[in-house]
Amino acid sequence: MTTGIILFGHGARNPEWAEPFQRIRAAILRSAPQTPVELGFLELMQPSLDEAIDRLVQGGVGRISIVPIFMAAGSHVKKDLPQRAANAMDRHPGLTIDIAAPVGEATSVIDAMAAYALNPG
Amino acid sequence: MTTGIILFGHGARNPEWAEPFQRIRAAILRSAPQTPVELGFLELMQPSLDEAIDRLVQGGVGRISIVPIFMAAGSHVKKDLPQRAANAMDRHPGLTIDIAAPVGEATSVIDAMAAYALNPG
Repeated sequence: MTTGIILFGHGARNPEWAEPFQRIRAAILRSAPQTPVELGFLELMQPSLDEAIDRLVQGGVGRISIVPIFMAAGSHVKKDLPQRAANAMDRHPGLTIDIAAPVGEATSVIDAMAAYALNPG
Repeated sequence: MTTGIILFGHGARNPEWAEPFQRIRAAILRSAPQTPVELGFLELMQPSLDEAIDRLVQGGVGRISIVPIFMAAGSHVKKDLPQRAANAMDRHPGLTIDIAAPVGEATSVIDAMAAYALNPG
C-alpha cells in the first residue's frame, strides 16, 4: 500500500507565502522521487487539507502521513488537524492517517534553525 | 560592539507553544555560549519584541539581528516587524537592527524539514 505525505500549513492571503512549502515538497521529491506528496492548507490557500487528502486517495494512497509545517503545536495542530483527519478517515473507509509532531519540534530542524540564526548571511 | 540575536515569534496563549523557541535558544548557546540571545514575541507571550530589544540594549548590545522564527514571510514579518524595529531604533539612538529572512526560507532549514517529513520517527 502506498504511503503519501501531506505538508500541512496554515495558509495566508499572499500566494508567495506558500513558496517555502513548495520548496520542502521539491526537496522531498529530490531525495524520494516516487513519494506522493501534497501541500494541504488549513485556510486561505488551495489545496485545502481535505482536497490534498482526496487527491492522494484518488491516486491510490492507503496511508497518509500529515506533517504539520508549524513552529509549534497550537490549537490548529492540536484540535483542528486531528478533527479533520478523523473526518477524512470517515469519508474514506480503509484510509489510515498518521499525524507527525510539527517540524518545529524536531531536533534536527531546531539545530538547523539555530545554525541559521547564528549566521543568516 | 556586541551583537545580539532575537528569535522573533508570533506567540500563543498556551505557554507550551514557546518550547521550540527555548530549544533554539539553547542550541545557539551550546555552539556560541557568549551570544546574547533573547526570545521576542509579537503578541500573547512575554517577553515582547520591545522588551527583548530593551533587555539586550541594557546589556550593552549595539547591534541586534532579529531572526523571524516563521515558516514564511506574511504581514507580521513584512510589515509589523520592520515597523517595530524602526521604532526601536528611534527609541535607542546608536542601535542598529538587522532583520534576517524567516527561518522557513533558509535552504538548510528546508532540507532539514524535508528529511524530517520523510521520516518523522
